[in-house]
Amino acid sequence: MKHVLIVGGGFVGLNAAKALGKSGKVEVTLIDKRNYHLFQPLLYQVAMAGLSPAEIAAPLRSLLSGYRYVRVLQAEAFSVDAKAKKVETSIGSLTYDYLILGCGAQHAYFGREEWEPLAPGLKTVEQATEIRRRILYAFERAECTTNLEEKMKQLTFVVVGGGTTGVELAGAIGEMSRYTFSKDFKNIDPKLTRVILVEAGERILPGYHPDLSARAARDLESLGVQVWTSKKVSGIDKDGVDIGKERIQAATVLWAAGIEAAAINTTLGQSLDWLGRVPVKPDLSLEGFPEVFVGGDQASFIPEGAGNALPGVAPVALQQGRHMAGNILRDLAEKPRKDFTYFDKGQMATIGRSRAVVEAGKIRFAGFFAWLTWLFIHIYFLTGFKNRLFVVLQWAGAYFTFNRGARLIVNKEWRFYRPKEDKDQRSGDS
Amino acid sequence: MKHVLIVGGGFVGLNAAKALGKSGKVEVTLIDKRNYHLFQPLLYQVAMAGLSPAEIAAPLRSLLSGYRYVRVLQAEAFSVDAKAKKVETSIGSLTYDYLILGCGAQHAYFGREEWEPLAPGLKTVEQATEIRRRILYAFERAECTTNLEEKMKQLTFVVVGGGTTGVELAGAIGEMSRYTFSKDFKNIDPKLTRVILVEAGERILPGYHPDLSARAARDLESLGVQVWTSKKVSGIDKDGVDIGKERIQAATVLWAAGIEAAAINTTLGQSLDWLGRVPVKPDLSLEGFPEVFVGGDQASFIPEGAGNALPGVAPVALQQGRHMAGNILRDLAEKPRKDFTYFDKGQMATIGRSRAVVEAGKIRFAGFFAWLTWLFIHIYFLTGFKNRLFVVLQWAGAYFTFNRGARLIVNKEWRFYRPKEDKDQRSGDS
Repeated sequence: MKHVLIVGGGFVGLNAAKALGKSGKVEVTLIDKRNYHLFQPLLYQVAMAGLSPAEIAAPLRSLLSGYRYVRVLQAEAFSVDAKAKKVETSIGSLTYDYLILGCGAQHAYFGREEWEPLAPGLKTVEQATEIRRRILYAFERAECTTNLEEKMKQLTFVVVGGGTTGVELAGAIGEMSRYTFSKDFKNIDPKLTRVILVEAGERILPGYHPDLSARAARDLESLGVQVWTSKKVSGIDKDGVDIGKERIQAATVLWAAGIEAAAINTTLGQSLDWLGRVPVKPDLSLEGFPEVFVGGDQASFIPEGAGNALPGVAPVALQQGRHMAGNILRDLAEKPRKDFTYFDKGQMATIGRSRAVVEAGKIRFAGFFAWLTWLFIHIYFLTGFKNRLFVVLQWAGAYFTFNRGARLIVNKEWRFYRPKEDKDQRSGDS
Repeated sequence: MKHVLIVGGGFVGLNAAKALGKSGKVEVTLIDKRNYHLFQPLLYQVAMAGLSPAEIAAPLRSLLSGYRYVRVLQAEAFSVDAKAKKVETSIGSLTYDYLILGCGAQHAYFGREEWEPLAPGLKTVEQATEIRRRILYAFERAECTTNLEEKMKQLTFVVVGGGTTGVELAGAIGEMSRYTFSKDFKNIDPKLTRVILVEAGERILPGYHPDLSARAARDLESLGVQVWTSKKVSGIDKDGVDIGKERIQAATVLWAAGIEAAAINTTLGQSLDWLGRVPVKPDLSLEGFPEVFVGGDQASFIPEGAGNALPGVAPVALQQGRHMAGNILRDLAEKPRKDFTYFDKGQMATIGRSRAVVEAGKIRFAGFFAWLTWLFIHIYFLTGFKNRLFVVLQWAGAYFTFNRGARLIVNKEWRFYRPKEDKDQRSGDS
């Protein structure tokens, strides 16, 4: 049996593994540095205390336990030696006949990595709970202080980047402060919360039709979010943000302004694009290495005749994962490979509780019905029946009570007997 | 209005705050270093991947938002100046007319604090997720290795301490390895897992009738747990445990062998007992300071005629919190205070999925019906309607599928751009 090594248990890897596992014609090893598949489109809900991490994650091992020839190993991949058909990992060197890479992307600061402790991005469960901790803690500190300037600083939230993630984060903070928290605090009025969404481009949601961008901006404003477009962040420090010549005092800054593809790309011997993505051929394989496939956020796939690469969204990764599996099975059956074509079902972004914008080809709509569409599709694609049930229940509860179920400020440190001088625990807090 | 300061949002503080809040006759400030009330009796379920932290925790702020004269501040208390009626906290000095202390206890190593990184205790959410991480990670590492000795070490779990927590942890690991994981691993047989429960005394569950101790030991053995009594741990290192002259190679060691009361007790100017608890008078107040009440795990209350202090369990703390509130209101109404009497509804411990031991006065029973009793009582007392619903659903799902919903290995570090030399992240792992 041929051995297919899959690196990454995201939408690419999981869907490739399922399709190959179902065929029963190849031996599959899937490695991931985490033990779970994460439904990233709902990660912002974890950051916003709406869902628990376990509700949008499922162990890769259980998801794939039904396939006899698929094994799952928790390991980190460091580099690919495409000529020797080997991958170096934290559990040693693994060989392959076919390789599927779906390692995704990380938030990126484009040369300002020193901003990371001050303005976390949102790509992992750990980052989501860190963002949750910072937001909830800011309200707690605002409640405790009697200094008005300090209070306002704690109640000011700056979200950098007006793409889907930035819009969803800003909308959720606005909603939380206006509704969820409205009765909980005695010393502050959570409605005084300022949320500022900063976007360097001319409009937020630049991938959408201008009408929807405008609608999203209006909806955000109705939740108390100030939308600042054509503004570039020039500095971030522990007390706030410099935006050109302007200055905002803010205790919490969130980063949704950029991502870059997984670093393993640099070991492929190919030239990468400005986001660190590796270009792939129409059949999703790597130039010169037909047995290596790359997909999802890690790859740059430019459809024939199009100028731009496909966006880094879940449906692209999911379809690519399945397509790679199909091409491997075609090879084994000695049939010609097929080129990948993306079936675009559209894109959507949610703004607070009950508003969204949806765009699918020429169809565009916004408001409550768009939100219902968003809700239905996200729950439908959420992996695992139980998770789906729980998320529906959480949201039904949250919708009617305005409450958020996961309002825990969880620390990083679990030890009690700890050297006193070690202050890393609270770094970036103040 | 008199000002009542409550330190700690556990069972003592929460129930005192509710009773006082309902009366509307005093101004109440509740401070806690965490922003949530934690239902500690189910904490082992978080450590065992059965529940998410948010399912057994609820924000103190929401639980108490309905009471006009109760405010909640997130702050840590450092010391009490009982003569000046002041408490030093992380948000400055707070004064009071009445003080209620319910700061609880921490796991304790009795002079072997260097064991903490090697054998975490289970008192906080952070510790529970750390234990969960270690257990799940051990199975992942066992799956990856080809070295048989290493594999066995990874599949060996030592739980130190045969009280309720130790029994519940050991039973859950046994069950997890026999049922939950049975199909998920391809390279290991999770049934080979060794779980060793080490107890220094003659029998496990020493607070129970000997018949129930014996029954619990039998039930544990049927889940593959070896019960070692009259054995004392003399050393713990990263590869295992020394027990007298014996040696067990084990990658995961958990500590359930002791607790000590909150350190703030040392600032009360009283002599403490061997567990660091402060003795309280029959009305729960402190000798010489009738306006200071101490309860729960932090206090030692010896009922009249009894030789031992009441145990550190939730019902004691809950009843004491309410009783303190009653005594303060009696003071204000110029009525005499009442002495506290504990209404003992019994004690119980669960062993795996569908077995438990229950003891209430002379009534003792075990097995499936005991487990149902345990289930009903724990869910009934779980704070917050939504949490209850979710836990019931989780358990219904887990009961029929043997699955565990929260099998996430979550790291401590959220940053991506991190200095490479900082290895603290994985300390204690290997």
